[in-house]
Amino acid sequence: MLSANDIKTIRSLREKKYRDSFGLFVVEGEKMVAEALSSGLSVERVIRRDEVGEKTMERLSGLSSPPPVMAVVKQPSDQVPGKPAGLCLALDSIRDPGNLGTILRIADWFGVDTVFASPDTVEVFNPKVIQASMGTIFRKRPVYCNLPLLCESFTSASIGVFGTFLDGDDIYSCELPSEALIVMGNESDGVSREVAARVSRRLTIPSFSKGTHAESLNVAVATAVTVSEFRRR
Amino acid sequence: MLSANDIKTIRSLREKKYRDSFGLFVVEGEKMVAEALSSGLSVERVIRRDEVGEKTMERLSGLSSPPPVMAVVKQPSDQVPGKPAGLCLALDSIRDPGNLGTILRIADWFGVDTVFASPDTVEVFNPKVIQASMGTIFRKRPVYCNLPLLCESFTSASIGVFGTFLDGDDIYSCELPSEALIVMGNESDGVSREVAARVSRRLTIPSFSKGTHAESLNVAVATAVTVSEFRRR
Repeated sequence: MLSANDIKTIRSLREKKYRDSFGLFVVEGEKMVAEALSSGLSVERVIRRDEVGEKTMERLSGLSSPPPVMAVVKQPSDQVPGKPAGLCLALDSIRDPGNLGTILRIADWFGVDTVFASPDTVEVFNPKVIQASMGTIFRKRPVYCNLPLLCESFTSASIGVFGTFLDGDDIYSCELPSEALIVMGNESDGVSREVAARVSRRLTIPSFSKGTHAESLNVAVATAVTVSEFRRR
Repeated sequence: MLSANDIKTIRSLREKKYRDSFGLFVVEGEKMVAEALSSGLSVERVIRRDEVGEKTMERLSGLSSPPPVMAVVKQPSDQVPGKPAGLCLALDSIRDPGNLGTILRIADWFGVDTVFASPDTVEVFNPKVIQASMGTIFRKRPVYCNLPLLCESFTSASIGVFGTFLDGDDIYSCELPSEALIVMGNESDGVSREVAARVSRRLTIPSFSKGTHAESLNVAVATAVTVSEFRRR
């Protein structure tokens, strides 16, 4: 059923360069395959352990214990951002795949309208992003674009650009609008200089610790607290 | 400087059974070693790449790129919980080390007084917990204990026991006290039956998504949003 060449191609999809050149990606496990099949994306091939055998499944799977089923899915063509509107996120150079997946899950839960990401943010079809997103990538994928220009387009549309920093205004006592672009920065370096220069309001999640405390919150955690604050009002 | 036996012992500390029997754990990287040295814990040995060489460091390190420095630290004796007071967390069978580390970082940031954990929660000296905690484990470690009994002791002290569920009351419109025990459940199964039976108030973080959406939030993300809500009031 699967030729040696098929196996080689599917295994190669663990690497970004082959995902890019074939325009494909892999999802593993029953839940994810079911989500892929109902997502409207084109599923090129479904592979079941029952049919190909344990050994082949072990070779194909990127997981430590190979799942009963996996699928090869066609990458959708790039999403085109509509005009600036609603509550949106802009991810400035998020590098950790677990963080991107978790942020997409947060965006999905809190009904964030569009997630934008800088071109150097981790690729959404990275297997670890897909896993951490818990299937959310089938509904909510980042639109990769130039963030400084994006910020300017929101500002021109009279929608505020908010960023989280260690030295901003207390998020709990700020007025937060229902439409906004919220910028979240890189895990170590925060928001880049070019983007920070285009932020109209700097926010901080204050620490409630009495003594020395963690230097910062994880970026996905900070995203959750920030989006929760915008949404609850 | 390091005997073959020393190397063997340090490598063995990647496994819980050897951490338990030696009563030691390992931290890696300059920042973590500095935190260990200033933490008041007993640091048994500091190992520098400059002194032992690249090859030995590669053998000792559990990281994909070996750090310039690592340390072997003595496990502190078990923390004894004081009487029920303040804002506390109870982790009911959290299994993912990244989640425990991230939750400790959240607890540190928001000044949670004590973090309790069920005995089947992942061990705090697991290298992945230490890494995700970003050094927080030197200030904030879980007290492992029987959670049903813990819930009863809070209830007896007239402090409410809160839990997050998919079917609770909207957290944004509930009255939340400054003293509370907040229970967070397992990644797949949520709060266990025995603990759920002792929760006095069931809370939910509502979804703001219009259509189908993620089935749940990651447990560390849910912890952050919940603790943020308790603290901001």
